[in-house]
Amino acid sequence: MLGNFIYANPTKLYFGEDSKAHLAEAIKGFGNNVLLTYGGGSIKRNGIYDDVMAVLKDAGKNVVELPGVMPNPTLEKVMEGVKVARENNIDLILAVGGGSTIDYSKAVAVAANYEGDAWQTFWVEQQEPSVDAKILPVGAVLTMAGTGSEMNGGSVITNEPIKMKIGKVFDERVMPKFAILNPRYTFTVPYNQMVAGIFDTMSHIMEQYFSGDDDSTSDYLAEGLMRSVIASSKVAVKDPENYEARSNIMWSATWALNTLIGEGKTQDWMVHMIGHAISAFTHATHGMTLAGVSVAYYRHVMKYAVKRFARFAKVVWEIPVEGKTEEELANAGIDALAEWIKEIGAASNISSLGVTSDIIEGIANATIDLPGGYHHLSHEEIVEILKESL
Amino acid sequence: MLGNFIYANPTKLYFGEDSKAHLAEAIKGFGNNVLLTYGGGSIKRNGIYDDVMAVLKDAGKNVVELPGVMPNPTLEKVMEGVKVARENNIDLILAVGGGSTIDYSKAVAVAANYEGDAWQTFWVEQQEPSVDAKILPVGAVLTMAGTGSEMNGGSVITNEPIKMKIGKVFDERVMPKFAILNPRYTFTVPYNQMVAGIFDTMSHIMEQYFSGDDDSTSDYLAEGLMRSVIASSKVAVKDPENYEARSNIMWSATWALNTLIGEGKTQDWMVHMIGHAISAFTHATHGMTLAGVSVAYYRHVMKYAVKRFARFAKVVWEIPVEGKTEEELANAGIDALAEWIKEIGAASNISSLGVTSDIIEGIANATIDLPGGYHHLSHEEIVEILKESL
Repeated sequence: MLGNFIYANPTKLYFGEDSKAHLAEAIKGFGNNVLLTYGGGSIKRNGIYDDVMAVLKDAGKNVVELPGVMPNPTLEKVMEGVKVARENNIDLILAVGGGSTIDYSKAVAVAANYEGDAWQTFWVEQQEPSVDAKILPVGAVLTMAGTGSEMNGGSVITNEPIKMKIGKVFDERVMPKFAILNPRYTFTVPYNQMVAGIFDTMSHIMEQYFSGDDDSTSDYLAEGLMRSVIASSKVAVKDPENYEARSNIMWSATWALNTLIGEGKTQDWMVHMIGHAISAFTHATHGMTLAGVSVAYYRHVMKYAVKRFARFAKVVWEIPVEGKTEEELANAGIDALAEWIKEIGAASNISSLGVTSDIIEGIANATIDLPGGYHHLSHEEIVEILKESL
Repeated sequence: MLGNFIYANPTKLYFGEDSKAHLAEAIKGFGNNVLLTYGGGSIKRNGIYDDVMAVLKDAGKNVVELPGVMPNPTLEKVMEGVKVARENNIDLILAVGGGSTIDYSKAVAVAANYEGDAWQTFWVEQQEPSVDAKILPVGAVLTMAGTGSEMNGGSVITNEPIKMKIGKVFDERVMPKFAILNPRYTFTVPYNQMVAGIFDTMSHIMEQYFSGDDDSTSDYLAEGLMRSVIASSKVAVKDPENYEARSNIMWSATWALNTLIGEGKTQDWMVHMIGHAISAFTHATHGMTLAGVSVAYYRHVMKYAVKRFARFAKVVWEIPVEGKTEEELANAGIDALAEWIKEIGAASNISSLGVTSDIIEGIANATIDLPGGYHHLSHEEIVEILKESL
């Protein structure tokens, strides 16, 4: 049954290899002062920076640059952005990059005109901005597929001094006003990052799928998206410049986490919670941490939802039903997931990500406790899952 | 491969049996003068009118009522609405009903502040409203699932004197600003209309699915939606007050035609074109005309896309692949569609809708010529399909 929910997603998406031609149109209607946020400078090497700057200059915008947004954007960096935004009366924040840059830009957008302690209010206390909050508009030019940040209100920020990494999901006022989704831009991402993005996408879908036991349209949409990600990933890992595969991966990643497939049902974000804790200890790539623990995690919860896992095996992995008990079928689905992780070259374990036995207790302690979809993990179970993932 | 496209869909949806509680919030921010559009008055009998009026009165709105919107809204009725909207300085059009009422309200919204000949400009010439066009905002309280009008820019209007029924798909400026989607409201629809709405939804999906031969995320999403519609319809026809089934049907109908599953690919709207022509001659219910011709239509085009129809059989209908040629599998999928049409009680032929041999030539002449997805039908083929559908 679909429960009660509100769906609102006003982000305007310009998709395709010709989409950069729409940037000029997308930035119309915003004021003249643009804060251009980006990461380590790869966009300067691959030409995306030049593409974007040419459009901004043509439109006569005053561009203030804010480079150096790191993979796990810090509160300190956010406060730097707030200062720059205030000093330059910024009218639009244009994020050029992947999820980190967009997450970061949303944080600056919310904090720029907020007089209180933004970290405490929005991330720690998870409050909503007030009705009359002046939130700066954010636009995005996406260069990496995976996080879904281009079409949602999510913003994960790390408070380095106190080692806290917290995600806040803002409402539609903070979602990007527009995003340019050019699959060719994702060709510039290193192979390993492409694979991590693919698994991140798959994990977003699974974490919304493995919860609830009724017949919900959201689950059917999730199955369609998973089938698409699997089919395209198999092509992309062999031929990373296959436009068809990369365009499907990019589009699937956007819809995997823009609220659609989770509407009206419960969800299970424990794989992300464990993955975040691993990253905090090892700085391992986010998508890889998810891959490293997923198989052990799902084997643990499978016994609480054999029917759903059997459905996953049959529909998503096309495993023949004949001659198998429901439990055998369910297990075969997880086997197929494990095989696929190997096939695409994602992390099959967490040892390869730098996790050692002696830090497992610390990771388990740092894992945020959520109720889960089918089963609420105890501390001991988290430790077990981590050990089994070594 | 996903082609280039722009996705923009700002409609805010309040979904669920508690969604009526959100109407007060939804109408905030719009001016005081509300034009309330609705159909034949069934909303007065089932209590929906009272629900809505109570909220409008509480909010202190001036309500101008415009009842009598007919199933195929006419241009004449649109011009009546334009006059009322102008005379009353309407700030918001609130459509309470199904697709016809919402389509109608969009037409009034576009025409109200347009000085030229709206029919000629927007429907006949299919022009876009100018950049500075003053389009009235539309909100919707949906009472019937099927058309998808609650989250798209579509508006089908009939010019009675010249017997022309034309659909115009406007951009996001004309999409409803909000829609209240309460599955319990759809319980008030007669059984036959529920079935017609289910088939209309399925047809929207199939008409976007049966086109193109590459591996596109849009097709995977379409398969998920079809599987959901089929599963829920089988429950709903036996137990029309099953909330789970009706809520899934309502949500699937919205996503079947809000542009998502057609993005980046070609489409085939010939079943709708033939269906519209049948309605023009017989006044048969829209969804039933689609059901009446679909089996014959798809048998005609199947030979041009055996692979896609085999995929449809396997994924959507779960027909075992073993021991069948690709063509046998493809045919089995269409057989399954025909069986399902019978099972849910949709029209298995067009004789039951009032079509007789002597009007077939006229219907074929009135069918708008589109290129189709896999094959461009000749006039003779349209006649054949109609004869086979008798």
